[in-house]
Amino acid sequence: MGLFEFASYALDHLVDALRCLPGVGPKSAQRMAFHLLQRDRQSALRLAEALSRAVNNIGYCIECRTLTEEKVCQICLDPQRKENGQLCVVESLVDITAVEATGQFSGRYFVLMGNLSPLDGIGPKDIGLDLLDLRLRQGDVSEVILATNPTVEGEATACYIAELCNTHKIFASRIAHGIPIGVELELIDGATLSHSLMGRRKL
Amino acid sequence: MGLFEFASYALDHLVDALRCLPGVGPKSAQRMAFHLLQRDRQSALRLAEALSRAVNNIGYCIECRTLTEEKVCQICLDPQRKENGQLCVVESLVDITAVEATGQFSGRYFVLMGNLSPLDGIGPKDIGLDLLDLRLRQGDVSEVILATNPTVEGEATACYIAELCNTHKIFASRIAHGIPIGVELELIDGATLSHSLMGRRKL
Repeated sequence: MGLFEFASYALDHLVDALRCLPGVGPKSAQRMAFHLLQRDRQSALRLAEALSRAVNNIGYCIECRTLTEEKVCQICLDPQRKENGQLCVVESLVDITAVEATGQFSGRYFVLMGNLSPLDGIGPKDIGLDLLDLRLRQGDVSEVILATNPTVEGEATACYIAELCNTHKIFASRIAHGIPIGVELELIDGATLSHSLMGRRKL
Repeated sequence: MGLFEFASYALDHLVDALRCLPGVGPKSAQRMAFHLLQRDRQSALRLAEALSRAVNNIGYCIECRTLTEEKVCQICLDPQRKENGQLCVVESLVDITAVEATGQFSGRYFVLMGNLSPLDGIGPKDIGLDLLDLRLRQGDVSEVILATNPTVEGEATACYIAELCNTHKIFASRIAHGIPIGVELELIDGATLSHSLMGRRKL
């Protein structure tokens, strides 16, 4: 028997449905359901509408695999970005937001939506590398900037894509890893410090 | 401009709508939206449906103010519980679940859906005390068990309701506060220990 069947099946069902959200356990789901029903029914309806609208309208950009309501996303459609010739490869959509916020990049993106992870059965096709391969063949990419995360999987994925670029004779670069700005040297872990030494540049 | 307008207005709208959930900030909302769209679109639709169903169907029991899809909830309808004569006053629906789980109570409930809190502008009518007053007049309640939380507001609300019971000449009791079972005395805070001393019983 559900927790609130004495009160309402619909409430039980809502608490259960809320648990599909990542990081939401039974207690948080209860709290959310009560909050919405007791204080914010308008927002609950708005959320219901936003969910169905998003699920029904959002697909993947056929050029860069980002989430979009069109066939091709705004960034891929921009002619100036196309002319730029740089292609930044990131793991997820939030990474695009982060790179865009720097104002330092004006090329296009390619979103892997994950990482190579053979142990989890995630191979090159699952992260769209067949699509990336096609794109590199088109000849409008002059440089691939590998901006995957500095994790084991991220590094492995970056290496794999660098190889792919090599076969197409396209210059591939990896974003620099080192000491973050504003952090003192003595507080930095050894791995980061090694990276920053190996990646030193002539002044 | 929204965070993901370059990708999709519907995504931006979903991230924004998810923030109506208690404890969900911008980062969690993003994570939830991506999780649903990339991995669990079926659950997202189910959640949308559960939300609108709950908002449209769930109202308050006219007897005890709990959330229910009917006019009167299952517990209030139960003739055995009515015969019992005891009325347990709790702050919220989850408290009913907790009391029910003990198996020690077989009367009916009254849910305040909050606490008296004059500073926040929450008076007796806002927590349904006019309805409780009507109910006590009906003459089928022999004892009111005050099970509000041991907070300042909870205690104040319990005192207020005890006064109300007095005017109706109905016996009012407060649940006991003291050392939780299985916890050692030296680990208990002073306030709890004072309560447990004041509430001592003859063996």
